[in-house]
Amino acid sequence: MTPSVEQTAADTIKALSMDAVQAANSGHPGMPMGMADLAVVLWGQFIRLDPGQPAWPDRDRFVLSNGHGSMLLYSLLHLMGYPLSLEEIANFRQWGFPTAGHPERELPLGIETTTGPLGQGFGNGVGMAMAEAHLRAVFGPELVDHYTYGFVSDGDLMEGVASEAASLAGHLGLGKLIYIYDDNEISIEGSTGLAFSEDVPARFDAYGWHTVSIDGHDRQAIAEAIREAQSVTDRPTLIAARTHIGHGAPTVQDTADAHGKPLGDEELARTKELMGWELPPFTVPDAAYQFFAQARERGAAAHREWDVRRRQVFDDDPARAELWKAYWNPVAVKVDPLGFEVGASVATRKASGAVINQVAVSMPSLIGGSADLAPSTNTIIDGAGDFAADRPGGRNLRFGVREHAMGAVVNGMVLHGGLRAYGATFLTFSDYMRPSVRLAALMEIPSIWVWTHDSVFLGEDGPTHQPVEHLASLRAMPNMWVLRPGDATETAEAWELVLNRRQGPSAIILTRQGVPVLDRSGAEGLVARGGYVLRPGDDVVLIATGSELHVALGAAELLAPLSVRVVSMPCVEAFLAQDESYRSEVLGVGLPRASIEAAATFGWDRIVGDGGLTIGIDHFGASAPATVLAEQYGFTPEAVASAVSGWLEPSN
Amino acid sequence: MTPSVEQTAADTIKALSMDAVQAANSGHPGMPMGMADLAVVLWGQFIRLDPGQPAWPDRDRFVLSNGHGSMLLYSLLHLMGYPLSLEEIANFRQWGFPTAGHPERELPLGIETTTGPLGQGFGNGVGMAMAEAHLRAVFGPELVDHYTYGFVSDGDLMEGVASEAASLAGHLGLGKLIYIYDDNEISIEGSTGLAFSEDVPARFDAYGWHTVSIDGHDRQAIAEAIREAQSVTDRPTLIAARTHIGHGAPTVQDTADAHGKPLGDEELARTKELMGWELPPFTVPDAAYQFFAQARERGAAAHREWDVRRRQVFDDDPARAELWKAYWNPVAVKVDPLGFEVGASVATRKASGAVINQVAVSMPSLIGGSADLAPSTNTIIDGAGDFAADRPGGRNLRFGVREHAMGAVVNGMVLHGGLRAYGATFLTFSDYMRPSVRLAALMEIPSIWVWTHDSVFLGEDGPTHQPVEHLASLRAMPNMWVLRPGDATETAEAWELVLNRRQGPSAIILTRQGVPVLDRSGAEGLVARGGYVLRPGDDVVLIATGSELHVALGAAELLAPLSVRVVSMPCVEAFLAQDESYRSEVLGVGLPRASIEAAATFGWDRIVGDGGLTIGIDHFGASAPATVLAEQYGFTPEAVASAVSGWLEPSN
Repeated sequence: MTPSVEQTAADTIKALSMDAVQAANSGHPGMPMGMADLAVVLWGQFIRLDPGQPAWPDRDRFVLSNGHGSMLLYSLLHLMGYPLSLEEIANFRQWGFPTAGHPERELPLGIETTTGPLGQGFGNGVGMAMAEAHLRAVFGPELVDHYTYGFVSDGDLMEGVASEAASLAGHLGLGKLIYIYDDNEISIEGSTGLAFSEDVPARFDAYGWHTVSIDGHDRQAIAEAIREAQSVTDRPTLIAARTHIGHGAPTVQDTADAHGKPLGDEELARTKELMGWELPPFTVPDAAYQFFAQARERGAAAHREWDVRRRQVFDDDPARAELWKAYWNPVAVKVDPLGFEVGASVATRKASGAVINQVAVSMPSLIGGSADLAPSTNTIIDGAGDFAADRPGGRNLRFGVREHAMGAVVNGMVLHGGLRAYGATFLTFSDYMRPSVRLAALMEIPSIWVWTHDSVFLGEDGPTHQPVEHLASLRAMPNMWVLRPGDATETAEAWELVLNRRQGPSAIILTRQGVPVLDRSGAEGLVARGGYVLRPGDDVVLIATGSELHVALGAAELLAPLSVRVVSMPCVEAFLAQDESYRSEVLGVGLPRASIEAAATFGWDRIVGDGGLTIGIDHFGASAPATVLAEQYGFTPEAVASAVSGWLEPSN
Repeated sequence: MTPSVEQTAADTIKALSMDAVQAANSGHPGMPMGMADLAVVLWGQFIRLDPGQPAWPDRDRFVLSNGHGSMLLYSLLHLMGYPLSLEEIANFRQWGFPTAGHPERELPLGIETTTGPLGQGFGNGVGMAMAEAHLRAVFGPELVDHYTYGFVSDGDLMEGVASEAASLAGHLGLGKLIYIYDDNEISIEGSTGLAFSEDVPARFDAYGWHTVSIDGHDRQAIAEAIREAQSVTDRPTLIAARTHIGHGAPTVQDTADAHGKPLGDEELARTKELMGWELPPFTVPDAAYQFFAQARERGAAAHREWDVRRRQVFDDDPARAELWKAYWNPVAVKVDPLGFEVGASVATRKASGAVINQVAVSMPSLIGGSADLAPSTNTIIDGAGDFAADRPGGRNLRFGVREHAMGAVVNGMVLHGGLRAYGATFLTFSDYMRPSVRLAALMEIPSIWVWTHDSVFLGEDGPTHQPVEHLASLRAMPNMWVLRPGDATETAEAWELVLNRRQGPSAIILTRQGVPVLDRSGAEGLVARGGYVLRPGDDVVLIATGSELHVALGAAELLAPLSVRVVSMPCVEAFLAQDESYRSEVLGVGLPRASIEAAATFGWDRIVGDGGLTIGIDHFGASAPATVLAEQYGFTPEAVASAVSGWLEPSN
């Protein structure tokens, strides 16, 4: 019996996956083998992609949340005609090749997001579907109308971030989100029965999803389930597909051994024999290429039709064409001064709220929200409405108490394209979303995090809510920019810097408490350099960030007749990126230096150098009013001046 | 009509909570008012505590997961007779008082765990219930047989960590875990309808919980629901109690305004008027004390009966008495050398597995597991069985892919007492559990984290799995000890150090790849000092950790005739805790220093000083075999030697 082309396509995925993992001598063959039937149906019959123009805005999005099954994706992308060669597949997991152990975002290759850390892709897909729903509301379905498909695993569904994102997706009724759950009952330690016995479809029903359970190797049932999912437009769909991990392997199918290691030469040979597969390794039969050629042509045709529609729409409605440009080809952002009076006490979170509302007017693609702390983080865009199931055009995102989903969703919205998204919570709760923050840094995407209540000076809520180590821990992360502006005017400049940064995530770190608006005449625009001289002086250099900047200025006055320089350093990363001469000019050469930051001193030695003083807080805080904490922890101008003079003249 | 004593007790909680928040001018009155009825029923009729002896091992555990409602707990503890005075309540959220904004673990006061960061208490309670089930299996119900009760909020249930823990608790059939869900439909941003519309009881049914829904102000229904929960012994119970936040406040009840700020004088006065409450602020009517006196006596009587039973059991069965001591009064732990041959290639994760199995024999209280990575983290205790619903005596915990719940559960087990628990995953996924790690540090409890695959040298899995910034980010955390042993013998010493540390959490950071067993004769035991001279030398000092230690030794040989000192620094925190003279002796005075660690260099400046060299990886890694990465990133002995000599003689 001749196998169907669909069968050949599935077998090709299995063969390539087995071959690549075997050649690399590491990787995960079981998942691609188990999901090959699902993949050929989804990609063969449904998905709309145009590999010739991978960035087509209205393409369907595909997320492989179970990223360890990367060979499934690479196989699909190669067969579909993306520029990912068999040679690259044969060099799976090798230095210099794009076929990494886990998929790394590379849009020209069709890789929409970086996955591997479980649950993140699940959350990204929710963000992509939210972006689609929002842009559809803004531009109409003639311009934006696509699905977000995802493959998810037991592991994804066990992760809290996926639970949070699933609850949010159900709440928002994301009808164009369709996930296929690889229910293979196997995880690394063995049967999922070891740790996972919940009723997954019932859980998703409770979240407000549409669910359907099928045999994941019955390709007719798969197609029907996807059609059914498409027909349900007011809820996301989870297709629970019962599959066999390592499908077709005679001895390791349905075992944990199929999960994360090569099959071995013998098992591989036997599997191919049972499949009737006689081609050499890394060989693709023409029938498989032909099968995917029709899928590719379906997507290309859809893209052509979309181009026609778009031209028509733009011709009929030039305003919409302009708006489209504002979303998809953004210009540089300029933040105007906020107009607070010098000396006024303004929490930087309040200044930030003013920036958001100023920028939101001219930047319609700005969208974001908070994890149930909007009144505290000052992140509401006034008059822009809430994003809700029946009003996805709203620009205020209500994440609920779901920081981690917020991180993954913001990343997903940014990855989708067209939007500039931010997520907000208290700085201490950045820990809850850290895996998503890291992925934004790894992907070099410009997600924006607004983290307020940025030190022990949030006061009475106490040490559970008071960040101490967070600034250091975030500064240690590659590609991450941490901005801690010292007053309202620095806050405006910090936002401008962040909004124009495209190659990585940025965090804007803001005070709860009021801090004086400083006289920064002559220093306008210098936040962009990361650090700058705010007050000249030649005897000693005080380097401060955020709410400690005005304290340093106060201490400098008290230290007269010493000539005290005060350096504001709102962004250490940006400062270190300056050339050596600028840095020396700012920090001085041979001058004693002290850093002042109400946080762990870890990392400040590289700025103050040997013999430098690091004034910080290397312990957890306490529940008390901020002014009391400032006294107790030595963060008044008097205490800082005293610490500095004691350090300069230890004999006194 | 005279109010019932139960009503008076509830009103007292409300009045104290309103008064304290008003006096502090910050805090959360709404929750204590909304949950007062639930609290008086649970504490009045059911809970078994002995405030005179707060550490009674078989007491019921009570977790206030929605810790922002701390005044509810403080009120209960005061009324119950714990040493928490009205003066301390009147100084809610003030410096020097134990009545912090969020409850901070203080067993003598009856505060079992620190809560506030949402979802953590939920997970702690699951850990406590697991500890109880395990110890009950070990010692029998005559010695261990208590409930774990918890109050949880919408916010808790939105957090992923709670979802993970709930799924695990259902899987493990924790019949003595009873949570009361404060279903008040209000969160900080407004109605929960903004972001949270899932069917919570249906979700918990899907997890395998018993659920019951009641009116949270109907005290008879509350009592019936708790009795029903107790009667269900094979599943945890969630009592969904529909409550009114700010119950009784005439204008703010059922609004977000009741959540997180004082009622204000007028609303407070009106509320008391409506309650018929005529006492001055911070005054407790005798009836309320009497009400709680019977609850206190019930607990004390239970404790007396338990003492009798225990004496009987120990008399009848001296072996059980000995075993009890081993769990509850542990002696210092000694780890014997592992016996690997010098020069053999042994991954430190493997050495760690050997330690765990060695120690587990003499230390029955050691219990732990991994988030679905046990075969990779080498954390199985051989022959000790899995902890499962029908076999809670097993010591291998199967967390599933739930790192965050693992963190909160391990903390809960440690908080319960009697057990020494560890949780394991890859170092990069420590990010997923970071909020729990932080709470262990804040609580100063000795949770143990085993984090393997500790650098880019895990190889092919690629940058999603390769930690870079994690060591620095963890070292920045107060009270946290980070141990990165350099070979099998250091691993044994590191474990010994950790097992004997009681005042904070420790992380054991381990390699995936083999590293040579070093000749450490003469340096035995020195891991305890954090850093020590492994190879003497007088020209230059190379400081290395973990898998870079043998690389440094290799480089030292290549750098001959230079006299190169190699310092091993497996625990920076322990080293910095040594006295100045020891530190100078190890690092030398006036010698050039270079650090070598395959991770972010952030933080190493404080060790190497001005002009020092920090060899590290300040970017994300790549998917490739470890040996290739070592070449590419300069972590071979040759590359290190070349970097060091280039740095020492820049003119060459």
